[in-house]
Amino acid sequence: MVKNAVGRDIPEEIAGMKLIPFKGAFAHVPEGRKAAPKLGYVASPDRRDKVIRGIEEAIKKVGLKDGMTISFHHHFRDGDMVMNMVLEAAMKLGIKDLTLAPSSTFPCQEDTVLRAIKTGTLKYIEGGSYRGKIGQAVSSGVFDKPVRLRSHGGRVRAITSGDIHIDVAFIGAPSSDYAGNCNGLFGPHACGCIQYSVVDAHYAEKVVVVTNNLADYPCTPIEISEQYVDLVALVDQIGDPNKIVSGTLRITKSPTRLKIARDAVKLAHITGHIYDGCSFQAGAGGISLAFTKFLGELLEKEGYVASWAMAGTTKFLVDILRKGHVKKVLTGQAFDTAAIESMEQDKNHFLAGIDHYAHVHGKGCLVNNLDVIVLGATEVDVNFNVNTVTFSNGMLSHPIGGHQDTAAGAKLTIITAPLMRGRLPIIVDEVTTVTTPGETVDAVVTEYGIAINPRRDDLMEKVKGSDLNIVDIEDLKKLAYRKAGIKEQKKPDWDDEIVALVEYRDGTIIDVVRKVKGLENPLDKIE
Amino acid sequence: MVKNAVGRDIPEEIAGMKLIPFKGAFAHVPEGRKAAPKLGYVASPDRRDKVIRGIEEAIKKVGLKDGMTISFHHHFRDGDMVMNMVLEAAMKLGIKDLTLAPSSTFPCQEDTVLRAIKTGTLKYIEGGSYRGKIGQAVSSGVFDKPVRLRSHGGRVRAITSGDIHIDVAFIGAPSSDYAGNCNGLFGPHACGCIQYSVVDAHYAEKVVVVTNNLADYPCTPIEISEQYVDLVALVDQIGDPNKIVSGTLRITKSPTRLKIARDAVKLAHITGHIYDGCSFQAGAGGISLAFTKFLGELLEKEGYVASWAMAGTTKFLVDILRKGHVKKVLTGQAFDTAAIESMEQDKNHFLAGIDHYAHVHGKGCLVNNLDVIVLGATEVDVNFNVNTVTFSNGMLSHPIGGHQDTAAGAKLTIITAPLMRGRLPIIVDEVTTVTTPGETVDAVVTEYGIAINPRRDDLMEKVKGSDLNIVDIEDLKKLAYRKAGIKEQKKPDWDDEIVALVEYRDGTIIDVVRKVKGLENPLDKIE
Repeated sequence: MVKNAVGRDIPEEIAGMKLIPFKGAFAHVPEGRKAAPKLGYVASPDRRDKVIRGIEEAIKKVGLKDGMTISFHHHFRDGDMVMNMVLEAAMKLGIKDLTLAPSSTFPCQEDTVLRAIKTGTLKYIEGGSYRGKIGQAVSSGVFDKPVRLRSHGGRVRAITSGDIHIDVAFIGAPSSDYAGNCNGLFGPHACGCIQYSVVDAHYAEKVVVVTNNLADYPCTPIEISEQYVDLVALVDQIGDPNKIVSGTLRITKSPTRLKIARDAVKLAHITGHIYDGCSFQAGAGGISLAFTKFLGELLEKEGYVASWAMAGTTKFLVDILRKGHVKKVLTGQAFDTAAIESMEQDKNHFLAGIDHYAHVHGKGCLVNNLDVIVLGATEVDVNFNVNTVTFSNGMLSHPIGGHQDTAAGAKLTIITAPLMRGRLPIIVDEVTTVTTPGETVDAVVTEYGIAINPRRDDLMEKVKGSDLNIVDIEDLKKLAYRKAGIKEQKKPDWDDEIVALVEYRDGTIIDVVRKVKGLENPLDKIE
Repeated sequence: MVKNAVGRDIPEEIAGMKLIPFKGAFAHVPEGRKAAPKLGYVASPDRRDKVIRGIEEAIKKVGLKDGMTISFHHHFRDGDMVMNMVLEAAMKLGIKDLTLAPSSTFPCQEDTVLRAIKTGTLKYIEGGSYRGKIGQAVSSGVFDKPVRLRSHGGRVRAITSGDIHIDVAFIGAPSSDYAGNCNGLFGPHACGCIQYSVVDAHYAEKVVVVTNNLADYPCTPIEISEQYVDLVALVDQIGDPNKIVSGTLRITKSPTRLKIARDAVKLAHITGHIYDGCSFQAGAGGISLAFTKFLGELLEKEGYVASWAMAGTTKFLVDILRKGHVKKVLTGQAFDTAAIESMEQDKNHFLAGIDHYAHVHGKGCLVNNLDVIVLGATEVDVNFNVNTVTFSNGMLSHPIGGHQDTAAGAKLTIITAPLMRGRLPIIVDEVTTVTTPGETVDAVVTEYGIAINPRRDDLMEKVKGSDLNIVDIEDLKKLAYRKAGIKEQKKPDWDDEIVALVEYRDGTIIDVVRKVKGLENPLDKIE
């Protein structure tokens, strides 16, 4: 065990994997070269039509075999059908020991994934999110070796560097032509874009585009080009259109959360991070939506025009664009129908690659150019470390998303969190799991005050004389403990066994997650 | 020596390079994997601004050293200043033995390139074109080892597979932001796009964007992203705007050439390759421009809407797009101001990567989906082999461009050529140099008749009963010889020494070019 830069004990090796402990947000310099994908070959133009019928045919033709790694994107969110179709077909065909390497998983996939684990078709999940019953299964110790949690940028890094080697990428595409040029913008199951799969397509040995909508050649805009596509599997449905994107996302009505969002905007403004020409990321979480809305109102009131924003895009950001208060929007993921419409119609709405968004081992990325980002948290501790991945009982709960990436990149990183969730303090002595290191967090905004990271004297100076309620994070913690009626933080009831490694975006290990004692294994309930 | 599939003698090894003889247009299956570029690293967001002043500073900062390979694009055509600036600076700094790996060279670079060879700053030219005095220098034997001629797709293949390893790519960009996101669309020296450099950016060890126009971050559309860029060198001028693109390209007024273009359109139409929904490439060469114009008129007359076209784009293709007779245009290179305007304004005008255009070792490319392509030739022989790279005296003269790529991909490949140029027969027994194999050429259209490749019985059937003057290629040759007053083809006066290898698009060697006896070495005239 080695103590890493946030004080967590990290094994030097586990289950045959050599680990590099986290050294600090900008300390790890990668060595070596990117993974080298196979040279492709199309014998003659006669083989330009790659369309076949159905998933089983695709699995056979592409040569999916026991022990291989398969990947998926999560652009269809809780409406996805592609992952389930592939897993069902693999189970039917008796394929075993697959590794699943999705960009994320959603509740609609839980039952199928668990069944695939139970039947031996799946033996491991590589990256993605571990929420719901999948998180519970991992936390109860179903796998032989620990899974690895990665940020959006971290997944790109892992695939690019060869840490994740994908044998077959199955890419759900709302539109594709016969050659595999495809996008997420058009079609009955449009999801805006399919940018999470671009890196999969570039590095996987084989690529199957799964579509229910054959478009005229060339299917534009080309998010993934035919250069990378082996087969186009035509199916009836790739998702449930009602669940792929929301009609309209609702902003929180909680006065507490609205106050937090307003204070976050005020903090960013007073400290000079919202100005004529600023840049920001607009999230789709509860408080982030409200932040985007209030930010838009501020831009309007002040007559500012932000230079650009990126996002999981929603109507609230589209509104700012259309009112002329942000020059350009860059989207890597669309959350509602307004976002999709805007991607199609607005000239200053651009696609953003997830690699360009957040790949730390490129020579620069979008997050490095952000003025301000507002992020949520499951827990924040007095060292400003943030947990997004486990409940305080230690069970895996949520993905990292772009949390680590944007926190490290933005000039001002604001964590918004209520002081309590129910009777549980959110500001604690030590987060259950470190996802995002405190050195990349500048301020925590709660309904009981704003704590500024002592590393940021410059911010302290700027808030002097303002009406913002600036407090010490220790005091926030004490208040939370008092309200919870506890003297000490309750620690999770963890076994020794490590079930998950939390990667920092650079591939080092920032924390480990252990097996939760006495946790029911959801596989036991499956026939 | 081994006889290859077009009957040319190819050495198995030369100057330490192992060669694979050409086996047939679709016969060579590549083995192995792509080149693996270095993992990048940006220590912290504080290093996001990459702007420095001038080329010398860039050369020093990027660590350009003796023996390295540098690359350039040719989007500024005969108005380019970037290559000359870099070579001048390298000469001034005393850097020696560089290899030049441009996508092409133009007359404006000849003097500087020759001086750089003479002074020892350049020791080799890798790929690109070898025309004018550079072609003459190579043909007179200035280099220690033979140069390699490659098609547009072949250059992408060579870089992708590691056959060309670029140390520093210098990329002239009409617009770039401080982080290196850049494009060719905007700015005082706009050239439409800089797609030839995308593969350089992805594979080079270091990338320097050279711009005279710093744009707001993020500089969109992003043709090359900051992920790949080390430095942004700010200079006063990157090219001569009057020479970068033409105001308007003029169509030939020669009645002979106009007839050839008209007959080519007619042939494509009668054989079913121009139809409602067809696809075509529109070139910018003399006859190709006229072909595009007449094709547009035909589409209009017949009420056809072509599905897509790709091009070195000109006003003639933009006209077809704007009249609604082609649904989509894909551009990898812009030839006139109308093309640039259209790229900016027309929603159905898309950028096309050169890799997507023609990379044969991807899993598919645009050329494979073409219905019809019209190409020129320096010579065509009775086996339908085409020469584009040497004069009939054996001296290097022109680049391959997309010739091999489109000929192999399109359903109908038409070569247009006058029977004679001056007193020189163009249809000959054996082309001086094989650039494009006859098996990928379907017909040759001359002013004295159309020869159809006997491999294409199906086309023969379709032209029956038409008013097209279908002739045997042997008869065309005989007529040409008669007009030239010769009985036999005059062969070049070649030495034994091989000065150039002509690569087929798949990396095999389709022909060699030898030193021309008694040819003046243009370096001798340089002080």
